[in-house]
Amino acid sequence: MHLVTRTETDTMGAIEVPGDRYWGAQTQRSLHHFPIGVQRFRWQRPVIRALGLLKKAAAQANAELGELPSEIARLIELAADEVIDGRLDDHFPLVVFQTGSGTQSNMNANEVIANRAIELAGGVLGSKQPVHPNDHVNRGQSSNDTFPTAMHVAVVEQLHGHLFPAVTALRNTLAGKARTYEHLVKTGRTHLQDATPITLGQEIGAWVSQIDFGLNAVRASLPALHELAIGGTAVGTGLNAHPQFGDLVAQKLGDLTGHPFVSAPDKFFALSAHDALVQCSAALRTLAGGLMKMANDIRWLASGPRCGIGELRIPENEPGSSIMPGKVNPTQCEALTMVCVQVFGNDAAVAFAGTQGNFQLNVYKPVMVHNVLESIELLGDACSAFDRHCAQGIEPNEAVIDEHLERNLMLVTALNRHIGYDRAAQIAKKAHREGLTLREAALASGHVSAEDYDRWIDPLEMTRPG
Amino acid sequence: MHLVTRTETDTMGAIEVPGDRYWGAQTQRSLHHFPIGVQRFRWQRPVIRALGLLKKAAAQANAELGELPSEIARLIELAADEVIDGRLDDHFPLVVFQTGSGTQSNMNANEVIANRAIELAGGVLGSKQPVHPNDHVNRGQSSNDTFPTAMHVAVVEQLHGHLFPAVTALRNTLAGKARTYEHLVKTGRTHLQDATPITLGQEIGAWVSQIDFGLNAVRASLPALHELAIGGTAVGTGLNAHPQFGDLVAQKLGDLTGHPFVSAPDKFFALSAHDALVQCSAALRTLAGGLMKMANDIRWLASGPRCGIGELRIPENEPGSSIMPGKVNPTQCEALTMVCVQVFGNDAAVAFAGTQGNFQLNVYKPVMVHNVLESIELLGDACSAFDRHCAQGIEPNEAVIDEHLERNLMLVTALNRHIGYDRAAQIAKKAHREGLTLREAALASGHVSAEDYDRWIDPLEMTRPG
Amino acid sequence: MHLVTRTETDTMGAIEVPGDRYWGAQTQRSLHHFPIGVQRFRWQRPVIRALGLLKKAAAQANAELGELPSEIARLIELAADEVIDGRLDDHFPLVVFQTGSGTQSNMNANEVIANRAIELAGGVLGSKQPVHPNDHVNRGQSSNDTFPTAMHVAVVEQLHGHLFPAVTALRNTLAGKARTYEHLVKTGRTHLQDATPITLGQEIGAWVSQIDFGLNAVRASLPALHELAIGGTAVGTGLNAHPQFGDLVAQKLGDLTGHPFVSAPDKFFALSAHDALVQCSAALRTLAGGLMKMANDIRWLASGPRCGIGELRIPENEPGSSIMPGKVNPTQCEALTMVCVQVFGNDAAVAFAGTQGNFQLNVYKPVMVHNVLESIELLGDACSAFDRHCAQGIEPNEAVIDEHLERNLMLVTALNRHIGYDRAAQIAKKAHREGLTLREAALASGHVSAEDYDRWIDPLEMTRPG
Amino acid sequence: MHLVTRTETDTMGAIEVPGDRYWGAQTQRSLHHFPIGVQRFRWQRPVIRALGLLKKAAAQANAELGELPSEIARLIELAADEVIDGRLDDHFPLVVFQTGSGTQSNMNANEVIANRAIELAGGVLGSKQPVHPNDHVNRGQSSNDTFPTAMHVAVVEQLHGHLFPAVTALRNTLAGKARTYEHLVKTGRTHLQDATPITLGQEIGAWVSQIDFGLNAVRASLPALHELAIGGTAVGTGLNAHPQFGDLVAQKLGDLTGHPFVSAPDKFFALSAHDALVQCSAALRTLAGGLMKMANDIRWLASGPRCGIGELRIPENEPGSSIMPGKVNPTQCEALTMVCVQVFGNDAAVAFAGTQGNFQLNVYKPVMVHNVLESIELLGDACSAFDRHCAQGIEPNEAVIDEHLERNLMLVTALNRHIGYDRAAQIAKKAHREGLTLREAALASGHVSAEDYDRWIDPLEMTRPG
Repeated sequence: MHLVTRTETDTMGAIEVPGDRYWGAQTQRSLHHFPIGVQRFRWQRPVIRALGLLKKAAAQANAELGELPSEIARLIELAADEVIDGRLDDHFPLVVFQTGSGTQSNMNANEVIANRAIELAGGVLGSKQPVHPNDHVNRGQSSNDTFPTAMHVAVVEQLHGHLFPAVTALRNTLAGKARTYEHLVKTGRTHLQDATPITLGQEIGAWVSQIDFGLNAVRASLPALHELAIGGTAVGTGLNAHPQFGDLVAQKLGDLTGHPFVSAPDKFFALSAHDALVQCSAALRTLAGGLMKMANDIRWLASGPRCGIGELRIPENEPGSSIMPGKVNPTQCEALTMVCVQVFGNDAAVAFAGTQGNFQLNVYKPVMVHNVLESIELLGDACSAFDRHCAQGIEPNEAVIDEHLERNLMLVTALNRHIGYDRAAQIAKKAHREGLTLREAALASGHVSAEDYDRWIDPLEMTRPG
Repeated sequence: MHLVTRTETDTMGAIEVPGDRYWGAQTQRSLHHFPIGVQRFRWQRPVIRALGLLKKAAAQANAELGELPSEIARLIELAADEVIDGRLDDHFPLVVFQTGSGTQSNMNANEVIANRAIELAGGVLGSKQPVHPNDHVNRGQSSNDTFPTAMHVAVVEQLHGHLFPAVTALRNTLAGKARTYEHLVKTGRTHLQDATPITLGQEIGAWVSQIDFGLNAVRASLPALHELAIGGTAVGTGLNAHPQFGDLVAQKLGDLTGHPFVSAPDKFFALSAHDALVQCSAALRTLAGGLMKMANDIRWLASGPRCGIGELRIPENEPGSSIMPGKVNPTQCEALTMVCVQVFGNDAAVAFAGTQGNFQLNVYKPVMVHNVLESIELLGDACSAFDRHCAQGIEPNEAVIDEHLERNLMLVTALNRHIGYDRAAQIAKKAHREGLTLREAALASGHVSAEDYDRWIDPLEMTRPG
Repeated sequence: MHLVTRTETDTMGAIEVPGDRYWGAQTQRSLHHFPIGVQRFRWQRPVIRALGLLKKAAAQANAELGELPSEIARLIELAADEVIDGRLDDHFPLVVFQTGSGTQSNMNANEVIANRAIELAGGVLGSKQPVHPNDHVNRGQSSNDTFPTAMHVAVVEQLHGHLFPAVTALRNTLAGKARTYEHLVKTGRTHLQDATPITLGQEIGAWVSQIDFGLNAVRASLPALHELAIGGTAVGTGLNAHPQFGDLVAQKLGDLTGHPFVSAPDKFFALSAHDALVQCSAALRTLAGGLMKMANDIRWLASGPRCGIGELRIPENEPGSSIMPGKVNPTQCEALTMVCVQVFGNDAAVAFAGTQGNFQLNVYKPVMVHNVLESIELLGDACSAFDRHCAQGIEPNEAVIDEHLERNLMLVTALNRHIGYDRAAQIAKKAHREGLTLREAALASGHVSAEDYDRWIDPLEMTRPG
Repeated sequence: MHLVTRTETDTMGAIEVPGDRYWGAQTQRSLHHFPIGVQRFRWQRPVIRALGLLKKAAAQANAELGELPSEIARLIELAADEVIDGRLDDHFPLVVFQTGSGTQSNMNANEVIANRAIELAGGVLGSKQPVHPNDHVNRGQSSNDTFPTAMHVAVVEQLHGHLFPAVTALRNTLAGKARTYEHLVKTGRTHLQDATPITLGQEIGAWVSQIDFGLNAVRASLPALHELAIGGTAVGTGLNAHPQFGDLVAQKLGDLTGHPFVSAPDKFFALSAHDALVQCSAALRTLAGGLMKMANDIRWLASGPRCGIGELRIPENEPGSSIMPGKVNPTQCEALTMVCVQVFGNDAAVAFAGTQGNFQLNVYKPVMVHNVLESIELLGDACSAFDRHCAQGIEPNEAVIDEHLERNLMLVTALNRHIGYDRAAQIAKKAHREGLTLREAALASGHVSAEDYDRWIDPLEMTRPG
């Protein structure tokens, strides 16, 4: 409870705000008008930090271009640093579901930085002296270019800081497993039916390739994310911004973050559509699809322990059932695949929102970046957990693998080249029908001698090209 | 190739149309302007028939209400009959992707019926004498109310004529199997892991319940589909239509089709949104989801033949592989689940389109009805094929089922009530760890005597409540 | 920070838990294994409360059926009451992305209630004496039936407690506006083009009808949600539960909540699929689609103020732009439509998850209920905000409405009945081409006298049937 | 009707096939077992052609590698040429919804080519002499690698042959318009509200940029599509194929088509997942999203003619209404946006299907390629129609544009730099409240002289950076 309040003003008039918060009138109005999902939809670190980075870079650029007195810029930078490093997170109370341009969160940043800067200068909170939220902190900017700029900065930082390391660690664990088991021959399966042999390394390697594909798809979305709307101001023309402002802010953001940000070549496009996010979201969906396939394969291969496929063992992390004693379940697979369907849902929201721009603005910005960031967070977290609590502990159950391999009738395929597809089919069908081993059926067919059989049917050899 | 042409006119002027076709100027213009997906997206029987039914009912109603001379109405009815029964399908060349109100297909019906009526009356094609496409065939109507009316009529007819019989037949086949195997005890599976026993009848029965749920959901969409936009004309006010026209046309459509059509209570809503289709599509998606789960269960239970679960046998309809001789695959499951994902995609299109109305009209009508009809067609076709070529031939592989049941450690759950969850867990874990049977581990635990074990662990009993 | 810990045990062994928390070993393991989205994906009130209600009802039922000593049951009830009313929320730390059956949240409830009951009885936390989390709190239950039961209870309570009141209030506001403006004639619009007149009341009434449709669709999902899985235990057979347990718990939940819960007729279906949630989610999507159309209509009708349609005035709640002084934007429409696309995304996740059941269990339970509850929360919140901060303040700009109506050429439609469609078209085209009023063009055509025109063209009359 | 039949055989036995068709037993069985969507879901040219190309390339490669006698290869090539150029389309009767690996369509190609080759050699249809469908035409291949190879070939060819030219033509038309109107100043709009000025060229240019973004996204999916599964045979190991077969076939397909096909580096991934299609589909969705935004902008800017925004004129292609005479609607926008929602639906199906692979195979291949090809076809067709029948004819209505610009209060933004945001806001609000022009309100404020106003408020200048 904020017992003491102070009066803040905007062009609509005066309004009371909590005395212990830096935000101003527009933030307060937003709190009042948008009590939507307040427990779970407040902006989190990545967006708040990105707004701080942007306001700092903008102040630097404006000072350099002669658009702001250097002492004002300096005060803004100091306050922005506190936003960047998280010290002022409590002063960012707004939620995703607000104005569709993110105006109120941009103003939240302007107001908090202005008031904190005023405080640093020994001024009176709410006085807009010596630092004005619009005329100084928002100098040369509009919500319409700042918010999408912050969106890109936040997403790029989270991709590098959260997603890539987590997914790469999982990928590397699997790649290690693939090498470890590169010669362990086992039954392949197509259509869920027994097929010709592969090695466990090949099977796991396909998961690695699929994760790599997904990661590459996400990486391929980066260049478009590096293009920033800043400099476009209200509609893309850059009205009220110095002509070099966009380029300079992008450069400074690059310096601050280490990412190669540039000013978007077409600001009108950068405000009215967010296809970079749409493509990034789609790539996250592709990655999620690959992770889902991997997780499904793992839980099926680990199914059983006695009435399933049972070729893999996975870590037993917790009791599996509140009623069935001793049961152990593939819970990491379950958590990860639930995350994957969530990513699919998030992507559907992003893509839908991406179509709904009109004229010079798309007013679904907050919901778009929210969903992309949520997908990044969940995929990163789930891959980390999956890596540590499942993937690293995967082991083959060689007894089962060997038993399956021995029973697998599809080894017959190696006979095609020697006796033709039709005769080979007769042998397999006879074995299946009469419950014979493949060897028994082959010899009984008269087309294959025992010697030929043993030379032709070599499962490990069957896993090698040519 | 249409070598001979004739001149038709509309308010835009004159245009040449094929001499052997009844359509007029507006149809011809649409052909010219919308060459989009022409091989696969021409309207099919259900929509053409529905337009014919509507034009017949409208003529009857107009005559009865004194809005059309009875001889004109009679001619329209005769021509409409030919549309209804399919004789004039070649005169409906337009595709889904046209004007979003379906105006051109409404005009196609008006023009074809007018010209055929003119011909029946001995008049000159294109003369609009004695039957005018707008003033007579379209009397008291607008595309904005006729096309959504035809949409509902087409969907209701296809649900009853195609979907319900096909899905019900499959459902009944499965219900029969559930009865046949109501006492066949087998391993239950949760989290893909062995769980306490169930009967095969119970397992199949859950599929039946899920299909019933889906069917009921689809049926629950019927009352809204029975509400017809007719009578609303251009914007919902019913301008230019007799005040009883909507009710009377709905009643006559009811007489012609046997379905309880009524005039929609709010015509403004009936033109500007198609939530009845959205809900129908969602219900088809729910049904598809249930069918997908069933098909997946079946193919997993039939997986193998030797390295999978292998508890079910399904018909071997065709060679499964062009390279692996003797392989048989669950192809009906594959075709059906592919249909299910298509239905999911179709539904996404319908729901998206359903949000995009503006003011007095939603101009995504054609794409909405197209997708709903496609989903109905595919689900009906696929369920029929699945019923005949898979479900009817499903049989248990009792040897495998029995072997699995015997190895299933989760029978231990029945001990909870007697020795508590914690001790029961110790027994199951010991058996798992040491490769013992559950009985061996139980006796070795000291908590269970041989007698107790045999009395407490009765798999069939475990499938019965209490 | 939890400085002091205590040792808790489960079938996996011992583990330290925070000394000031009631949860036990399995909750602690879940915290460790599933650090996924921990800031935003902890279960909130509705699910925690539903678990409390269920455990209370189960204890009552077990006591009544002689399955639990009454003093044990009494202790459980007391502890469950504290869960129900929110006093123990801090003891429910788990997130959505955990085991797919919700086992860990079920165990979280069992552990917290057991320990709190032990404390009430003066026992030692973690001793499982006199109240055991599995043998007593979870008596006759499995996560597989309790968690889906809690899902349905939570959703039903949130629909009644949150969604219906909020949406109904908005609906009633609009219905009031529709009555107020039932005679205010204005331009209708189809294809975004000027069309025949309607009243503002008719236009708003269509939004009311569409919201009613959505609400009815959601309500139609209730009967299936009232069916509870409880009584099915691990796989649906009800093993280890008293045969009357399911019915009795459902009855007691009905008593506790006032909703007509019943025991699901097919428990196998109730565990292996959650189509009741899928249908509920689809209905929420339908509702969202309708709200989106309404919000879009409102912002377009309020577009301008000087270069748009401008027929409506909506409340000016906050400054609209950080750069354009004096700008006011339709921000409530933006927040609401962003919620709508989120609901579409959530629904996509739910429907996808709903297809992925296997055998006796669907292991996407948590993500399904999470998304349904989020959609309910957001729609309710956004409708409330929209009602208070937009809908209630909607007013017509009659000057603009009148000017538009006067310029609208589509009034010509009323001439169809008198001079035929083709001549009417010529008049409209002439007016359009030459910049005339419709009246001028009509008189100039020679087909209409001034007297006829004034009698035939009566906009208000054109909004009335017949 | 096929009156005469002939007997064909496969490993399942004999079956009658139509005497005038080249297909064999497996195609016939598929026709029998999969009567699903037969009117609309037969494979079309792109897939049939791709199968022909692949079989030709495979025969060439096998001959070169000594795996096939050159005369057999020669016969196969001749027959394959007829498949490639469309002469044998009537011999490809199968539909999308078949076995999920496309086995039956691969066999359809094998059978047709074998029989046609046999005929060319003077042999007996169905004799498999001298050309065997499996041992020769399918030499070194499996459906599991051929069908996904054909998928990629078909998609790449359609992207280049259909999509890129059509979309590029539209893009170029718009780019020309952007140049033509690069100095035509008009009102910008954000949040649907009047905003600072832009030029029509800038507005149109943003559409061009967005289309370019979409096209680039689609192009970025090409490298992965160029990677072909061929050489992997049944499970990815390449069993039964010459070790250089995959590379050589890819090279020959490159020669035949002009596209840089290569053999996929990880065949296990290439069979078990189709993420290249998933990404391609996502990119098509992004493109569709951009087209939707453009089409929506155009129809809104052309809304009216008298009661809308009315700043653009678009071609009047056909009568717009069957009841409202003289009405003209933005029908090309409607057709295109309907295509866009269809593409969204198709993409949802593709992405869903893409997650459902198991082990060494994804058995949703046909439905995936079907949807991608449909999206390509529809987008290409719709863009061509839109270009010719709408985009080329777009013209500004300068009178309306000028009137709007003059009334636009947001020109006030240019005053920020001179008098500050707060004072500028007061001026705009006063003008809005009192119905003044901006100039009147500015002068009345006392902060701006007439001279200043005219120097500071220059709309064209406001569209230029700096």
